[in-house]
Amino acid sequence: MTISSATSSPGRAASREADLAHRFTQVRTLTLDLVAPLSDADATVQSMDDASPAKWHLAHTSWFFETFVLRDHVPGYEAFDSNYAFLFNSYYEAEGARHARPRRGMLTRPSLDEIRAYRAHVDAAVQAALPGLGNDALDLVELGLNHEQQHQELLLTDILHLFAQNPLHPAVWPPQPMASVEAAPLEWIEGPTGQVEIGHAGQGFAFDCEGPRHAVLLTPYALASRAVTNGEWAAFIADGGYRDPRHWLSDGWAWVKGEGISAPLYWQQDDDGGWMQFGLDGLRSVDPAAPVTHISLYEADAYASWVGARLPTEQEWEAVATMHDAASGNQLDRAGPVRPRADAAASMFGNVWQWTGSAYRPYPGFKAAEGAVGEYNGKFMSGQFVLRGSSCATPRGSVRPSYRNFFYPHQRWQFTGLRLAKDLT
Amino acid sequence: MTISSATSSPGRAASREADLAHRFTQVRTLTLDLVAPLSDADATVQSMDDASPAKWHLAHTSWFFETFVLRDHVPGYEAFDSNYAFLFNSYYEAEGARHARPRRGMLTRPSLDEIRAYRAHVDAAVQAALPGLGNDALDLVELGLNHEQQHQELLLTDILHLFAQNPLHPAVWPPQPMASVEAAPLEWIEGPTGQVEIGHAGQGFAFDCEGPRHAVLLTPYALASRAVTNGEWAAFIADGGYRDPRHWLSDGWAWVKGEGISAPLYWQQDDDGGWMQFGLDGLRSVDPAAPVTHISLYEADAYASWVGARLPTEQEWEAVATMHDAASGNQLDRAGPVRPRADAAASMFGNVWQWTGSAYRPYPGFKAAEGAVGEYNGKFMSGQFVLRGSSCATPRGSVRPSYRNFFYPHQRWQFTGLRLAKDLT
Amino acid sequence: MTISSATSSPGRAASREADLAHRFTQVRTLTLDLVAPLSDADATVQSMDDASPAKWHLAHTSWFFETFVLRDHVPGYEAFDSNYAFLFNSYYEAEGARHARPRRGMLTRPSLDEIRAYRAHVDAAVQAALPGLGNDALDLVELGLNHEQQHQELLLTDILHLFAQNPLHPAVWPPQPMASVEAAPLEWIEGPTGQVEIGHAGQGFAFDCEGPRHAVLLTPYALASRAVTNGEWAAFIADGGYRDPRHWLSDGWAWVKGEGISAPLYWQQDDDGGWMQFGLDGLRSVDPAAPVTHISLYEADAYASWVGARLPTEQEWEAVATMHDAASGNQLDRAGPVRPRADAAASMFGNVWQWTGSAYRPYPGFKAAEGAVGEYNGKFMSGQFVLRGSSCATPRGSVRPSYRNFFYPHQRWQFTGLRLAKDLT
Amino acid sequence: MTISSATSSPGRAASREADLAHRFTQVRTLTLDLVAPLSDADATVQSMDDASPAKWHLAHTSWFFETFVLRDHVPGYEAFDSNYAFLFNSYYEAEGARHARPRRGMLTRPSLDEIRAYRAHVDAAVQAALPGLGNDALDLVELGLNHEQQHQELLLTDILHLFAQNPLHPAVWPPQPMASVEAAPLEWIEGPTGQVEIGHAGQGFAFDCEGPRHAVLLTPYALASRAVTNGEWAAFIADGGYRDPRHWLSDGWAWVKGEGISAPLYWQQDDDGGWMQFGLDGLRSVDPAAPVTHISLYEADAYASWVGARLPTEQEWEAVATMHDAASGNQLDRAGPVRPRADAAASMFGNVWQWTGSAYRPYPGFKAAEGAVGEYNGKFMSGQFVLRGSSCATPRGSVRPSYRNFFYPHQRWQFTGLRLAKDLT
Repeated sequence: MTISSATSSPGRAASREADLAHRFTQVRTLTLDLVAPLSDADATVQSMDDASPAKWHLAHTSWFFETFVLRDHVPGYEAFDSNYAFLFNSYYEAEGARHARPRRGMLTRPSLDEIRAYRAHVDAAVQAALPGLGNDALDLVELGLNHEQQHQELLLTDILHLFAQNPLHPAVWPPQPMASVEAAPLEWIEGPTGQVEIGHAGQGFAFDCEGPRHAVLLTPYALASRAVTNGEWAAFIADGGYRDPRHWLSDGWAWVKGEGISAPLYWQQDDDGGWMQFGLDGLRSVDPAAPVTHISLYEADAYASWVGARLPTEQEWEAVATMHDAASGNQLDRAGPVRPRADAAASMFGNVWQWTGSAYRPYPGFKAAEGAVGEYNGKFMSGQFVLRGSSCATPRGSVRPSYRNFFYPHQRWQFTGLRLAKDLT
Repeated sequence: MTISSATSSPGRAASREADLAHRFTQVRTLTLDLVAPLSDADATVQSMDDASPAKWHLAHTSWFFETFVLRDHVPGYEAFDSNYAFLFNSYYEAEGARHARPRRGMLTRPSLDEIRAYRAHVDAAVQAALPGLGNDALDLVELGLNHEQQHQELLLTDILHLFAQNPLHPAVWPPQPMASVEAAPLEWIEGPTGQVEIGHAGQGFAFDCEGPRHAVLLTPYALASRAVTNGEWAAFIADGGYRDPRHWLSDGWAWVKGEGISAPLYWQQDDDGGWMQFGLDGLRSVDPAAPVTHISLYEADAYASWVGARLPTEQEWEAVATMHDAASGNQLDRAGPVRPRADAAASMFGNVWQWTGSAYRPYPGFKAAEGAVGEYNGKFMSGQFVLRGSSCATPRGSVRPSYRNFFYPHQRWQFTGLRLAKDLT
Repeated sequence: MTISSATSSPGRAASREADLAHRFTQVRTLTLDLVAPLSDADATVQSMDDASPAKWHLAHTSWFFETFVLRDHVPGYEAFDSNYAFLFNSYYEAEGARHARPRRGMLTRPSLDEIRAYRAHVDAAVQAALPGLGNDALDLVELGLNHEQQHQELLLTDILHLFAQNPLHPAVWPPQPMASVEAAPLEWIEGPTGQVEIGHAGQGFAFDCEGPRHAVLLTPYALASRAVTNGEWAAFIADGGYRDPRHWLSDGWAWVKGEGISAPLYWQQDDDGGWMQFGLDGLRSVDPAAPVTHISLYEADAYASWVGARLPTEQEWEAVATMHDAASGNQLDRAGPVRPRADAAASMFGNVWQWTGSAYRPYPGFKAAEGAVGEYNGKFMSGQFVLRGSSCATPRGSVRPSYRNFFYPHQRWQFTGLRLAKDLT
Repeated sequence: MTISSATSSPGRAASREADLAHRFTQVRTLTLDLVAPLSDADATVQSMDDASPAKWHLAHTSWFFETFVLRDHVPGYEAFDSNYAFLFNSYYEAEGARHARPRRGMLTRPSLDEIRAYRAHVDAAVQAALPGLGNDALDLVELGLNHEQQHQELLLTDILHLFAQNPLHPAVWPPQPMASVEAAPLEWIEGPTGQVEIGHAGQGFAFDCEGPRHAVLLTPYALASRAVTNGEWAAFIADGGYRDPRHWLSDGWAWVKGEGISAPLYWQQDDDGGWMQFGLDGLRSVDPAAPVTHISLYEADAYASWVGARLPTEQEWEAVATMHDAASGNQLDRAGPVRPRADAAASMFGNVWQWTGSAYRPYPGFKAAEGAVGEYNGKFMSGQFVLRGSSCATPRGSVRPSYRNFFYPHQRWQFTGLRLAKDLT
């Protein structure tokens, strides 16, 4: 998941700076709250190439403000440490050489405390500068906050992945009691058809890849009223779903065979054959009513094929989501147990990201911005699929119906799930 | 490239059998003509996992008729050799276990002559059965012929890849004189806009993935009047196009760095820095007026980015192609030198496959057929991009404006090129 | 296995040239006889990096004479084809660039017939030149003949490996009836102890690594009177030998787990659990009385550990072999079924190469020759183990008690077996 | 490097327990001193498969005492944590399943402080039990101390490797001034010849692989009076030593090309072409008079070949070392800068481990002990070479002339160097 140039939000002068200062404090504080339970070691280790250490997330999000706001827009700003640009650039080729991604976990120094000091340094400088920044710089502050919110989610999923490697099953947060609810019955929601407008409408922040807004033609279809549940997924497993090539995309079948996949990531069977699931609150029984999560696009597609349905396109998904109220659900606004929940399953947002059948490609008329900021989204538009909605690990207020998340079809360490679709007629 | 269930062509009784018998002879004969210059060894070796030996193509296309027509529709048919089903099934899971794809080159036995005898056996049985086959079986014959035409092209590109591994630069066919023409000036063709119908219209044969026919919305755009030429590509190289990450998709840049890519496949520089190109007629100077070929989607996209244009979508491409007359150009109807030619560059067809910016995904309402035949197209719909048109190695008469070819974005051993597109307004 | 500079054999003038001319014809003819059953395709394909195509063996052995005898010692000799030096050099860095070893199987051209013509050209030139060659050149002819005999064995084991990849189990030669003998009882032979001389004694040809002759100290030990048999090996398997880490070297256990090893190479179980073995005469039942073959050093060592014995050192082996008559047994002197045989098992030679517990390292005082010829042996002296004796695929007359064969401990596509040893007292 | 069953040291009753109690405190304390400068993160990360985290070394050495002494010999002992046996077993197959070696760096929990508590628990239990232990158990305590001393050295070399991955070049200890001495002139020491006894003589502790003591025959030879220096190595580099295949073993040349090797590990060139070296006290100029270190066997062998010498055999090395006084030099007895030093170069011990030309194989009559303890040495006797002496990171008092260290020929993260040898006559 990557960020992109902001659609400039219209002025309103002083109140914008004040608003951003307030949000800046909120967002930056939440990041620190999320890492509060972590040790220096927890925050340092990288569990796979796709993941980054928590410390790196803390530093990289600060580097973003330091580089694009402080260095470029605040005369006389002195970098906290001149080495950090090399260490904490993620993938911006225009910003020069950088530490190799798979080696991020080698950086035992600087320590977590030093990175906290780095954050404090940047925070103070941004807050001091904010009242005097022009609109271009304020756009970058806004972009940086959305960027940091994306990294808050990655930070949680990367920590989960790291802790899952530990045979002791450590928990980041203490377990909470499971809701004793049953899954809502699955109903079909007919979506808007014919010529439908999708894409960001122009008010408020959005990433560049969410536009331009444009019309698409939709033929009759329906979306499921809720995501597929763990209980339904267990039936797919029990029916031999992972062993029958007929359900699978060819690439997916090669992945299942090559990696020995037989269940969602973090699922394991206890001695009695019951399914357990590892999460940020440790190892516990699978809740059959909660949405299934940590599945790949290949698994989502195979399940849909098995059940005789299909994945929605991202256009269908957005058309349906736009009919509903604003984003809601089980989203993140403070540190604490993070888990898809049965009682939040009916929202389009807030439980699990939903794989769509749409490849991540540019909308008609899309053009990436000039310079480093233009690298945020456009260059990732091959080989990945779009996910829509948001998850239990997505910060509240950071997404909208037009939001396009994207991952490779085999990736599943995010809180990924699926919502079924079907053709009508 | 893979085949798919046929859209049944309308009857007309006896004339259909006669027509198929005639085409059967034509197609099966051309395949043998194509391998006439090959030795037993040439026809046996597999040069990479993506390629298959010529002998395997000869056998697999025969296995297709033997299995889906003779075994399933001709009572009493005796298989030529009961082992062949294991050896020459390509990827049909429903047909059971099969020899591993990367091990196809280990089969020095059966020999090329034995495979020719296998073909003769199958040919005689099909011709004998044809007059009495029902429409379902005739559909499968028609599918088998289109399937074999696809393999004719693969056979040529696989042989080219094999011969390119040989430091002696052997030629399949003797070189012909180069046309001494200049590239036509590049002009821009405005395509149809608004609500436009695409997809197979229902008359004649088509693969399942070419339908259902459906309407799309197109905003103003133009396509180049011809493909990008070798001369233009040499300018891209000379400008450092392969060394500047700004032009490249992120996956493409990783591919360029990881594989050390610096020119199209089969290009090499002579001692004076001039570009040479290896082809089925050996090693010769690059013709600057001919279309560039053997490039990946990544290269095509980077070139378009460098020149300030973009790739067409497959919908745009089809809309423009439909305005023109039927497929024409430099296509294959007999064994002989096969090469993109400058004097054929203006056609939408017949020189090089053209990468589009469209991921290979199902059209609205697409459903794969039941059974083994349903594995032909649908299961490949992840990770690949659509190419349109046809190449100098495509058998004449085997494509149409709705034809969707598809390959992974890094693959370039086919005769792949590009045609530029741009937004209007 | 590689060759090395010859210890010059003492003169005797004219009779040496005549003797070499006679042996030259014999050796060169046997090579052609061995490939007589092969098709062009059989002779072209390379089944793994460790193996070479038969055609390559034919050409490389000819290149050896062409380069080191004809080019260097016969004024006016014209190379058959100037490209062949690049194609058919094996690993002589001093001879310049060469075709990459894992790509040898890509050379469908030149054809097998062209390589036969190359051999005829070289043969005629060598025979014409022989009467006038000086002793240095005659030494190189003798070296070339020993070199070619080594490649005769490799040619057979490489063809066996290739044919083993084919699910049809093709046989190079028709099967012969199995000898219905029982394995001889295992007895222990006490070997010479104290200060014992080993290494080539100076009469006749030997590779450089067989000297210098030197004394070693041997403490009391005994060697088994015959090699371990298939029947004994089946008992090791049945006892779980491949599943118990206690028997295995650490590297060997990693190899067993990583490669999924559970039996000698080319063994497979039929539906009733009986063991079949693929050989140059096809697939047939394992003969329990014949020596086990196609095992790695790791397997040999694990078996010895399981049975409470150990592998002999190469010094012990040579000391015992020197007590016996000259090499004998089931060795190769014409094309035909090649297989370890129960009735030949008692010889130190001629059935299977015998893994020793000695790493392949230089003898005290060893110095490699100058120039390309010096690359034959010395540079391979790390990571490999010595095998002693000879196999059913070793040409008769090409080995002696001092002969040191060597392979990496995981390699087992040669006719490799083992003879047990134990300490006395 | 691995440990092995102890040769039981002769009794002397009470004084043995007291002596062991004293040494136990010393050794266990030194380990803690060595990690004192490390953060929790420093102690957790694993920089490559061959290395282990410092925390793991701390825990594994404690697990060794807990398992083989406390569990097996102290009735009623309660394990500190029942999970630790799984986490901190290294490779003892007889002790059951264990955490995969390449995943040791995933264990951010237990923390460094928890591991320190584990150590304290084990230390107290061992000290309490010591007065009452029998000789078998005391042997295991002695073995455990030698085992821990081996891990002290690995701990330092693993930390060095980790810190070397950090572009900031963090130092474990502050740099000390370089000794401004020149390298001593290289002289040749003639060693004992004829029948010479080597191997552990029976007094004091030794690992099983150091015996049995036995006679070998040595022909006249000489060893260099000191190790090869950095200055001499720089001349090898400047002469193109890393680019000329003639100097290299075949496996070594493949390693140089495959890994892009051009200097010792941790060497880098500054902008002026001067050589810098990273060590536990940070990045500093190479001292031309100090012994070269962090070289592979391949490099050592190539250097010896380039200079017209050879590596000593381990027998020659031991024979010469036995003529000298006891081990001495620059060895480790407290935490602090650890670096080979010019002024210590003349000792056989204490600066760098010296590659020998001897493969690590059993001595005549060697038998591994029964049970888990028997896995310490014998199972590693394939593919590795012996190193002799000791390094600046070897704890004082832990080695002797018969000590056999061993590593794979490509490994060089230990303090490895070389001492030249040559034949006389």
